[in-house]
Amino acid sequence: MGSAPTSPSTFDLQPATDLKWDEHGLITAVVQDAQTAQVLMVAWMNAEALRLTLATGETHFWSRSRSELWHKGATSGNTQRVTGVWVDCDGDTLLVQVEPAGPACHTGAVSCFFRRLDEPWSE
Amino acid sequence: MGSAPTSPSTFDLQPATDLKWDEHGLITAVVQDAQTAQVLMVAWMNAEALRLTLATGETHFWSRSRSELWHKGATSGNTQRVTGVWVDCDGDTLLVQVEPAGPACHTGAVSCFFRRLDEPWSE
Repeated sequence: MGSAPTSPSTFDLQPATDLKWDEHGLITAVVQDAQTAQVLMVAWMNAEALRLTLATGETHFWSRSRSELWHKGATSGNTQRVTGVWVDCDGDTLLVQVEPAGPACHTGAVSCFFRRLDEPWSE
Repeated sequence: MGSAPTSPSTFDLQPATDLKWDEHGLITAVVQDAQTAQVLMVAWMNAEALRLTLATGETHFWSRSRSELWHKGATSGNTQRVTGVWVDCDGDTLLVQVEPAGPACHTGAVSCFFRRLDEPWSE
């Protein structure tokens, strides 16, 4: 409060923004690589995770399985530097564009979406 | 049921796929433009919406506000032809890549993510 911003990757929340949190106080966050446009992962943020994400310029989420705040990369080193945060038309989903320091997925894959669900029929 | 596939954009569900549906029987679906890689929208699917998406090759969702199945573009004409469906590492989110016939957003915007939430501090 009153302290100068310490990093150019630090953001202010637009005061007029209306966000719709779900019944658990969470909002869906899609994380996209800012350079390649690859969708890296989907996670959830509560208000504190969003505040920390905007304040530090690195992604923070709410872990639904562990019920705790999670600074992405805190243990793995695979942090994600935020370059932009967008909200959708009805205010219930965020798109977070990042420059990742390493793989997004705990498996070591660049993206968590490495399995194809569908298989086109061969005719 | 023995009938021949009618379209090359029709898919079979991989039988081994394990999907995790939430307590409402829904799964989050991120829709991405297959050509531009732009994230267009996020919506929810129940099992029937996913089945119809795979069977018809056009996106179907579950509308949480209207509590009904929703064939994207049925009224607007802005259908989305599916080119690939991916599931994330923990099986609770889908990435649906599409060729859109028109804007994804009901506002007429190409993508529902047209509002920036953050504003980089000027130093």
